[in-house]
Amino acid sequence: MGNNAHTYNPFVSVDCVVFGFDGERLKILLIERTIDEQNFSDKKLPGSIIFDEEDLNEAATRILNELTGLKNIYLSQFHSFGNPNRTKNLRDRNWLERLTKMKIGRVVTVGYVALIKISRKIIFQSENTAANWYDINSLKFFELAFDHNEIADFALEHIRNKVKLEPSMLFELLPQKFTMTQLRNLYDTIMGVTSDVRNFKKKMLQMEGLEQLDEVQKDVPYRAPRLYRFDKRMHRKNK
Amino acid sequence: MGNNAHTYNPFVSVDCVVFGFDGERLKILLIERTIDEQNFSDKKLPGSIIFDEEDLNEAATRILNELTGLKNIYLSQFHSFGNPNRTKNLRDRNWLERLTKMKIGRVVTVGYVALIKISRKIIFQSENTAANWYDINSLKFFELAFDHNEIADFALEHIRNKVKLEPSMLFELLPQKFTMTQLRNLYDTIMGVTSDVRNFKKKMLQMEGLEQLDEVQKDVPYRAPRLYRFDKRMHRKNK
Repeated sequence: MGNNAHTYNPFVSVDCVVFGFDGERLKILLIERTIDEQNFSDKKLPGSIIFDEEDLNEAATRILNELTGLKNIYLSQFHSFGNPNRTKNLRDRNWLERLTKMKIGRVVTVGYVALIKISRKIIFQSENTAANWYDINSLKFFELAFDHNEIADFALEHIRNKVKLEPSMLFELLPQKFTMTQLRNLYDTIMGVTSDVRNFKKKMLQMEGLEQLDEVQKDVPYRAPRLYRFDKRMHRKNK
Repeated sequence: MGNNAHTYNPFVSVDCVVFGFDGERLKILLIERTIDEQNFSDKKLPGSIIFDEEDLNEAATRILNELTGLKNIYLSQFHSFGNPNRTKNLRDRNWLERLTKMKIGRVVTVGYVALIKISRKIIFQSENTAANWYDINSLKFFELAFDHNEIADFALEHIRNKVKLEPSMLFELLPQKFTMTQLRNLYDTIMGVTSDVRNFKKKMLQMEGLEQLDEVQKDVPYRAPRLYRFDKRMHRKNK
């Protein structure tokens, strides 16, 4: 293999980008890490080195659970990051070496993403980690560990492409009956756009499976808006 | 890291799935490898172990060039494969160890994909490798090395999703002026479908930037079909 001969193998890790919708806003799950003796801390994506006999998907599920307590989340792989400089920051390197008790060279990481409904405000605490939801818009103010800002950006782009291909995935994040405003709000939040109210409604109503109900939202202090629901089987049958 | 403590690092490789359209059929670029002293050979995707200081994209570009002679190809990363069993086949393992002169354990591979116009029938030969185009439908008859059949399937699925999101990418594979039949043939070949002639035309003509010309195809022994062309700038402006 010539002059560039291979001399050591990289570590391989997985990092999980979990987006959550709480009914109003899109959030991202981050964990806190302590980086020095003064207890100075910063934030990172939930992620870690894979085990020897573990497939990548298995590693992602295990690591997300260990670091955040989350279970039964469908994680989908979206991109791998292997720039040799991604572990060059001394702060990241020292932290990793302290944690793993190994000399760390290069780390190639495989990114996983999930989009879930936040059903409770998980604030997970274990001996070594604390996980919390943060507003997606706050990301631009955090300098996350390693290249995790870039990884989160890629993940959001991936989710947006998935929504474009299969808008029906949005209904998993809404209550069974919802208003058109709730649906538009969800769409706009994820896509980072501001849809025109009438065009949006028109476009959505073309989707097989979306039904207008003979019911209106209750207990609202203004003109009660119409409710809708989404019939997944109807949608599939007509695709 | 407990009982599952990390004991050795995997190798990291890239594998390139290059699809080519020759005007009629979709093909895939495979390389021949010799696996024993009797010169018995089989086929694999162009791929290899990454170098120490190389980013993943760089490695993909370098390796594709070294193994197939192809240059200036836009490779896009689509998925990584890390099942610990993917290097368990002795035939693959022996070949890899002979080639690299290293003891090979686990290899995590990062998949790259490209879709190009075949402008000449590249039959690349170097000291160690021969690259050739094979009809995509022949894939089901080849047992490729490692998990390369699975990787090729994933890559095709990835391309199909990209075409669904951005059908205009198809025009890069056609001559500047083309018939509706050529366009439909290309679409059907890539998507693995048989489109209805009239519906297809109707759907395509809704695309901004696709223009019907006042010209017909020349030198054809039957009723000459109308020609079309695609104006990329017009398409972008109206998106």
